[in-house]
Amino acid sequence: MSTSRTTFESVFPTLVADLKTHSTKYNLPSQALQWFDKSLNYNTLGGKYNRGISVLDSTSLLLSRSLTETEFFKAATLGWMIELLQAFFLVSDDIMDSSKTRRGQPCWYLAENVGMIAINDAFMLETSIYILLKKYFKQESYYVDLLELFHETELGQLCDLLTAPEDHVDLENFSMEKYTFIVVYKTAYYSFYLPVVLGLYFAGLATEGNLKQAEGILIPMGEYFQVQDDYLDNFADPETLGKIGTDIQDNKCSWLVNQALKRCSGEQRKVLEENYGRKDRGCEGRVKVVFEELGLEKVYLEYEEKIVGELRDKIANLDESDGLKKEVFEEFLRKIYKRSK
Amino acid sequence: MSTSRTTFESVFPTLVADLKTHSTKYNLPSQALQWFDKSLNYNTLGGKYNRGISVLDSTSLLLSRSLTETEFFKAATLGWMIELLQAFFLVSDDIMDSSKTRRGQPCWYLAENVGMIAINDAFMLETSIYILLKKYFKQESYYVDLLELFHETELGQLCDLLTAPEDHVDLENFSMEKYTFIVVYKTAYYSFYLPVVLGLYFAGLATEGNLKQAEGILIPMGEYFQVQDDYLDNFADPETLGKIGTDIQDNKCSWLVNQALKRCSGEQRKVLEENYGRKDRGCEGRVKVVFEELGLEKVYLEYEEKIVGELRDKIANLDESDGLKKEVFEEFLRKIYKRSK
Repeated sequence: MSTSRTTFESVFPTLVADLKTHSTKYNLPSQALQWFDKSLNYNTLGGKYNRGISVLDSTSLLLSRSLTETEFFKAATLGWMIELLQAFFLVSDDIMDSSKTRRGQPCWYLAENVGMIAINDAFMLETSIYILLKKYFKQESYYVDLLELFHETELGQLCDLLTAPEDHVDLENFSMEKYTFIVVYKTAYYSFYLPVVLGLYFAGLATEGNLKQAEGILIPMGEYFQVQDDYLDNFADPETLGKIGTDIQDNKCSWLVNQALKRCSGEQRKVLEENYGRKDRGCEGRVKVVFEELGLEKVYLEYEEKIVGELRDKIANLDESDGLKKEVFEEFLRKIYKRSK
Repeated sequence: MSTSRTTFESVFPTLVADLKTHSTKYNLPSQALQWFDKSLNYNTLGGKYNRGISVLDSTSLLLSRSLTETEFFKAATLGWMIELLQAFFLVSDDIMDSSKTRRGQPCWYLAENVGMIAINDAFMLETSIYILLKKYFKQESYYVDLLELFHETELGQLCDLLTAPEDHVDLENFSMEKYTFIVVYKTAYYSFYLPVVLGLYFAGLATEGNLKQAEGILIPMGEYFQVQDDYLDNFADPETLGKIGTDIQDNKCSWLVNQALKRCSGEQRKVLEENYGRKDRGCEGRVKVVFEELGLEKVYLEYEEKIVGELRDKIANLDESDGLKKEVFEEFLRKIYKRSK
């Protein structure tokens, strides 16, 4: 049974206390400690914690048993490190994208009295990962591996940002290669691969072979997840989805526009060029018409069946001899297949 | 003989090439690689490299000989890591402070086509440290120590920023305790302590005792350096200093204003409160008059003699039995005593 959000959340206050205690080493005045506390809570809490919870679930599946209290705490701490990494990215991305709201509240840099000090707060969120790693994992043989894993994940994300689409609308900039590249680092690597890898290290099963097998399934699975996200942005019922899609107006290098570009006539291309990425409902509507004309819903459903078939095959052929478990991947796939939000 | 800027600089292109090669692992498109290259050069080059060069000089003094070519390259790489850390801080500080120029050119975030993507570039500068550490020091027994050392230094700097004075002018916010705290993390820790500690690790002399002795001398020495900086900002000849001091107008929590606050009459305090931190030449002049009335130049010169005496005593009493060398500290002190710029 999957860990609940509340159970996972119950670990966080201890980590906040650890981080504050560590910071007092630097004689941080109480005002600054309160600020750090506020930033940690504001920016790390309130999401779905899918990534963090996946560490717990994967570890438990890998060990084929429930975790002891101590194991639960340590695995949850690893989970919170992914959430901190996510928080770090969101705080800085929101500044770079001039976003307005995040999880239903103002973005941190727009919160009262924050402003550009949010850049510093983003760094503090990142650094928190390494403080916690040192406190709880320094004694483990895989301590350095974890340090490097987080550094490499950060680098992947940063490289992703360097290839983000520019403000000006130019469909020439889009391509499926670019799409795949962005998706691998934006989603697959750290939402799918990282939680399982952390579970593997924690369970003492991070052999080269297991890491490679995990990567071979989780990277394409993460790609599928993002394609789904892009599909839902346009085709899902906003009521069910819980938001109204904005990818077309936001000039996103999404799977749908890339598929459209591959299939469109000269005339349809002209419509896309003139209407994609404009902050205008009418323009958005004209793009949606082209998507309909090209039958992208069907294209997606065919893609989904194909990729899910491939993933199931890979899982079925998994070599479990070094302790890797098919269930870890089945569980991920079960959660996302045919999701509607 | 101290390493020249040019010799130190000659190592940098190799490191830039390393960083770009590593990033191609993430399929970074050539446009993004060029951007990374540009940011590395723009933000890391052009300073005095005092910190970076100190690693080389300290290592050579600790080993009592010139470095071999391989040693020179590796120690210089450690030096460049401090310079990268510095670049990371400057790029983000300049955004947070809305600074305009840096080393005679526009701040990176104000450079053509940069803007808030500079936040991402700052992270890339930081991450570069860990890429280089992994490439060149993964095999060393002290690899983890270096990872942690850089993380701790970052944390210190970030905590420093959290205690930075707010925009509004309120002398109540200043105190010598706050001053000392800021200075230790802003200057002493990473401009004085870090270069020598990197040298100690590299020379295989980073025993607990040596690290402690180094800290006991270099932290107060760094503090002295910063006090000197604050003194020169107001009292040095701008021609010699190479710039016109702006601490008073910039509302800096400087050593001088803290000394003034300790010594002033009620009337002088009123002058400070009404004139400190205003962007106005007249206000600045009135603060300068109070500094003169309180004889702060003499106060500084007495402070300098006292602290330098203490530092000399500590150096004289240094325990060299584990390979630490008095010359390392004498060299630092020689460079800064009675400096005029």
